Amino acid sequence: LFQCCASCNCGLDPKKRDMLMKLEELRRTGGAVELDEREKLLDAKLRKLQEHEMKAGPFPPSMHFFKAKPLIEQSPIFSLLQKMPKGGALHVHDFGIVGVEWLVKNVTYRENCYVCFTNEVFVQFIFSSGQPAPRPLCSRWTLLRSLREKTKNITDLDNSFIRNLTLFTEDPDRAYPSQDVVWKRFEKAFLGAYGLVTYAPVFKDYLYEGLRQFYVDNIMYVEIRALLPATYELDGRLNDKQWSMQACQEVVRRFTAHYPDFVGARVIFTVHRGVNATVAIKAVEEAMTLQRNFPDTMAGFDFVGQEDLGRPLWYFKDALSLPEQRGVDLPYFFHAGETDSQGTEVDQNLMDAILFNTTRIGHGFALARHPVVKDMSRKMDVPVEVCPISNQVLKLVSDLRNHPAAMLMAEGHPLVISSDDPALFGSSGLSHDFYEAFMGFGGMSFNLGTLKELVLNSLRYSSLPSQTKEKAIAALLVKWDKFVLESLL
Amino acid sequence: LFQCCASCNCGLDPKKRDMLMKLEELRRTGGAVELDEREKLLDAKLRKLQEHEMKAGPFPPSMHFFKAKPLIEQSPIFSLLQKMPKGGALHVHDFGIVGVEWLVKNVTYRENCYVCFTNEVFVQFIFSSGQPAPRPLCSRWTLLRSLREKTKNITDLDNSFIRNLTLFTEDPDRAYPSQDVVWKRFEKAFLGAYGLVTYAPVFKDYLYEGLRQFYVDNIMYVEIRALLPATYELDGRLNDKQWSMQACQEVVRRFTAHYPDFVGARVIFTVHRGVNATVAIKAVEEAMTLQRNFPDTMAGFDFVGQEDLGRPLWYFKDALSLPEQRGVDLPYFFHAGETDSQGTEVDQNLMDAILFNTTRIGHGFALARHPVVKDMSRKMDVPVEVCPISNQVLKLVSDLRNHPAAMLMAEGHPLVISSDDPALFGSSGLSHDFYEAFMGFGGMSFNLGTLKELVLNSLRYSSLPSQTKEKAIAALLVKWDKFVLESLL
Ligand SMILES: [Zn+2]
Ligand SMILES: [Zn+2]
Repeated sequence: LFQCCASCNCGLDPKKRDMLMKLEELRRTGGAVELDEREKLLDAKLRKLQEHEMKAGPFPPSMHFFKAKPLIEQSPIFSLLQKMPKGGALHVHDFGIVGVEWLVKNVTYRENCYVCFTNEVFVQFIFSSGQPAPRPLCSRWTLLRSLREKTKNITDLDNSFIRNLTLFTEDPDRAYPSQDVVWKRFEKAFLGAYGLVTYAPVFKDYLYEGLRQFYVDNIMYVEIRALLPATYELDGRLNDKQWSMQACQEVVRRFTAHYPDFVGARVIFTVHRGVNATVAIKAVEEAMTLQRNFPDTMAGFDFVGQEDLGRPLWYFKDALSLPEQRGVDLPYFFHAGETDSQGTEVDQNLMDAILFNTTRIGHGFALARHPVVKDMSRKMDVPVEVCPISNQVLKLVSDLRNHPAAMLMAEGHPLVISSDDPALFGSSGLSHDFYEAFMGFGGMSFNLGTLKELVLNSLRYSSLPSQTKEKAIAALLVKWDKFVLESLL
Repeated sequence: LFQCCASCNCGLDPKKRDMLMKLEELRRTGGAVELDEREKLLDAKLRKLQEHEMKAGPFPPSMHFFKAKPLIEQSPIFSLLQKMPKGGALHVHDFGIVGVEWLVKNVTYRENCYVCFTNEVFVQFIFSSGQPAPRPLCSRWTLLRSLREKTKNITDLDNSFIRNLTLFTEDPDRAYPSQDVVWKRFEKAFLGAYGLVTYAPVFKDYLYEGLRQFYVDNIMYVEIRALLPATYELDGRLNDKQWSMQACQEVVRRFTAHYPDFVGARVIFTVHRGVNATVAIKAVEEAMTLQRNFPDTMAGFDFVGQEDLGRPLWYFKDALSLPEQRGVDLPYFFHAGETDSQGTEVDQNLMDAILFNTTRIGHGFALARHPVVKDMSRKMDVPVEVCPISNQVLKLVSDLRNHPAAMLMAEGHPLVISSDDPALFGSSGLSHDFYEAFMGFGGMSFNLGTLKELVLNSLRYSSLPSQTKEKAIAALLVKWDKFVLESLL
């Protein structure tokens, strides 16, 4: 009957019309989720909130996040989403997971922290037992403790650091007229945090604090795309990637010991997509070694950096063929389609990600423009990691109702919601992105079932081994029922 | 083989990769068009221009049309598109087809033209043999000839009229912060033109000039959505819809007699979607009468006005069921899905348009978010009339690369490109919209085959009777070959 309805003109029979509407609903993400009685009650409550929010003045998903944020934070839907157990965050980057307040108020107040200024605007930091060697294009290194002693308004100084380390600005359209400009600014913010986070003792604390902030946002599992850069000690001695992986493993164990309902964290080793073929081969070899040495913590491999300016995946084909040639299973988690170039070499990345057997697709913003790749991704159950706020701030889309994930979710394409670099955008672990996705991609057409499916997807599509995954999903469902019950009180 | 390729992981075989790319190409609008030797040469030339334009500085489709327009007009691709025979313009409105320069420089200079000012900003015009009766909220009517005699700078005055009658402004983001604001301004501009265009002698000239401007833009056929308002004579006497249809018929005959390669124009009678059920029934009855009396000129029926604020199609179900009940064939051409409300009553219009057996869908901006309706539209070969510049100016999308038609074209959905109200946006008949669609929706992935298919679609999906349609397509193909040849010189 459904088949008939969809394939022929059914005229004006209201019953058939209802059936077609039901058919559309069933196709949607979460549209086939059956809600129990309690969930239905919460869904009815949610529906009223949605109706109110669609009508009440400026609609946050249509605005730039920097302007929408205060509105979102007043929304009762947002506070519901904060309380909701959100499962896993599958697309976040090292250097982008800890709110920068913590970096400035905690890390820069530690002993032996030096600062220098480039162009009198941007800052870099370093920890050192003595005066650090000067850097090109940077002022003389100043010990932050001395600088603070000489500074009248320390709050202003700290706020200027905070502004440096995030992309926030009152007038983003003016400050960031193009993708290239905002990406440059983005990389500067990364560089600012770099000297703080790669200091070996901070590295561990940073990771721990990152997990804590995600945990507080009701997230029970994280997969971190990590450059695993060399960390340094106070005397300038460098630690290698093995050290960093060891540190990750140790921090995660310590964290899960403190918070037993936290499932854990895994690392996707990443390399900048600007590297040449030789460096890429070395990186893939390193990834295979890490995979062998840290099978529990290491999840796989990916490239990072602005896709339009980097090298396409096909350029790296020799490196990416290595694992299969050597009989090693190295899962890939490629960023692909984070672009609006159409029909160029870069626009080929989505197809190549699938051909290289990627486990998930990072962003996949361009996927809806590639119907063949979209079909393959669906048939092979390769989900897209959708990061709404990141795509908006990095200028792929302004009004989030036009985000292509709205179409993907309308047809129930496998996907998860993530936050990319929440620290740089000023968002929380996942709650702000969930708000944008829920209200922006679906409006009144999404419901509690949508949320439940998204949350379950975040564990289903994780790289967790199957037994752990099953346990995690069971634990999530217990949390979910508790959330539903408490939200009805 | 293709089937296999799309459904399984094909690994790294470059041949299979090429095949998948070919498969994507074949799905695209025009991807299966076979180009002859000459067309291939022109396509190669076009490809170079596309490459250059993708790299050369700010990309016009990513900018607001008011800022992009001067850039577009310098583009060699645009001048190619101007010369290209574009077939038919299937979605344009009366009051929006003649560049306002003509209204101001020609019509307002005619005898007996009065002007009044509302809020000292907006203008209204009327022709009258004596002093016209005052209008609420409007200054005293002034004879334009007297006003011009008293005015020092007539150019300034005329330019202020021109600004009134279009939406153009240097800073559209500031002037039009929301859809409601820009729609209000849009309706004010319509009101400004109303008193000029509905003056009976002007009505005919306006239509003739409209056809001429489209003809100059290499368009051979037009379907005009027309409110068919009462026209007035100098003494205030009113003419009815029959008069207007008669006038249309006469003007089209006169025009085609002058320009024998122009195929003609047909009228889609439209009513504002704010009317109540009773008025709608009357309108549909009028439409049936016009259809009987002017079978060659009258094409069908539609509703107009801001979809979000108007009544949904389902509200009009009794009126829309009338023709079938009376055994009359009244084709529908519904505006539907010109909205970004999701899951609301208005968002149901797309499905209802299909259920009411619409011949084409006006805009269908939301279609990609309705996979069931999308499938039906494809299977029933109901095309979407895509109006890129209109959707951008009316704030459905800012960067045209994110227009959902990019996805529809990637999967070869039936569609045509049109211009809605070119006079109000400052665009030409179809060339500017073709530029935005070609470069914005496809970038490097579109080619000459895309253009050929779009151009053929514009006649294939017209309401012309089949014999006339076949002749028109044959004539278009002759024009096309001439265009290809001349563009190679
Ligand atoms: Zn990322
Ligand atoms: Zn229209």
